Amino acid sequence: MAHINLNNQFPGIVGLMHYRPETAKPLNELAEILLRGESTLTSAEREMIASYVSHQNECHFCHSCHGAAAAHHLDGDLSLLSDIKDGFRKTNLSLKMKALLNIAKKVQILGNRVEPDDIRAARDEGATDREIHDTVLIAAAFCMYNRYVDGLGTWAPEEPEAYDETGRMLAHEGYLKSIP
Amino acid sequence: MAHINLNNQFPGIVGLMHYRPETAKPLNELAEILLRGESTLTSAEREMIASYVSHQNECHFCHSCHGAAAAHHLDGDLSLLSDIKDGFRKTNLSLKMKALLNIAKKVQILGNRVEPDDIRAARDEGATDREIHDTVLIAAAFCMYNRYVDGLGTWAPEEPEAYDETGRMLAHEGYLKSIP
Repeated sequence: MAHINLNNQFPGIVGLMHYRPETAKPLNELAEILLRGESTLTSAEREMIASYVSHQNECHFCHSCHGAAAAHHLDGDLSLLSDIKDGFRKTNLSLKMKALLNIAKKVQILGNRVEPDDIRAARDEGATDREIHDTVLIAAAFCMYNRYVDGLGTWAPEEPEAYDETGRMLAHEGYLKSIP
Repeated sequence: MAHINLNNQFPGIVGLMHYRPETAKPLNELAEILLRGESTLTSAEREMIASYVSHQNECHFCHSCHGAAAAHHLDGDLSLLSDIKDGFRKTNLSLKMKALLNIAKKVQILGNRVEPDDIRAARDEGATDREIHDTVLIAAAFCMYNRYVDGLGTWAPEEPEAYDETGRMLAHEGYLKSIP
């Protein structure tokens, strides 16, 4: 049960968004632009960054939803969720994506942990300024979403399968329809 | 100099918002609702939470802008900025505000660090569910803004006085006019 009375039974951020629709609007718009908007990074790559950062922040709900969304942008295999936890041992990532994940990891710790060498390494693998910008903002944004979800003590289903339909919806219908 | 080429000379998040106006829009809308929208917490109180969390995240730019905004909601005295760094030794805070700052501090560390006792302590001082919700979301949101600003290595003026006009503008004109 959440720390406050949400007057609904929805899990994670969904319950919070029904509780406070006014803030839900910009929160969903930001996610839509960052994860599904025009970009030279695929939505699968961006959802993997989101899920990875969420796992680092110990947020089971966001890790699962965005891992499932990434899976649905690919072949739908939910074993991706545990592979994200394991640091992408089985997932085939480009060197550019690995360098961007390294930046995301630094951002998750604290903004000022990102070093010029981290940026240089991403550039050396072909990352553009815009890709670096969006990686930093995705990682930063999930440091918000994760804290919002867990700071208010919302509940979350345990098993990966429980996130299958949500992942499908986020991947194919997006974030703007989830507003009450 | 920022880690990427922003094509402008603006400091902190202002430079980032000019670089990427599409994401600036929901980011500013969220700040406007949380810090200046209808609430039983004063804007000064909400800006103090924002500035305090920013200091905990070592983000000089956001600590200074939002500390100056809080000052301009009060008597305009910029010594508030250093007092926020010192943990509000000189500022007269209500017991409710102290309990909410304690929740914000936990959220800054990680969402799951907020305990039922922290919520109970705030309720005992009269905090409503909505006030607790907004405190958690303000703290979480600044964990994003701070990482965005520092993760991309933006520059920031050093002295408190350099934030006086920005603080006045944020307090009295708000966040929606700063979009390019």
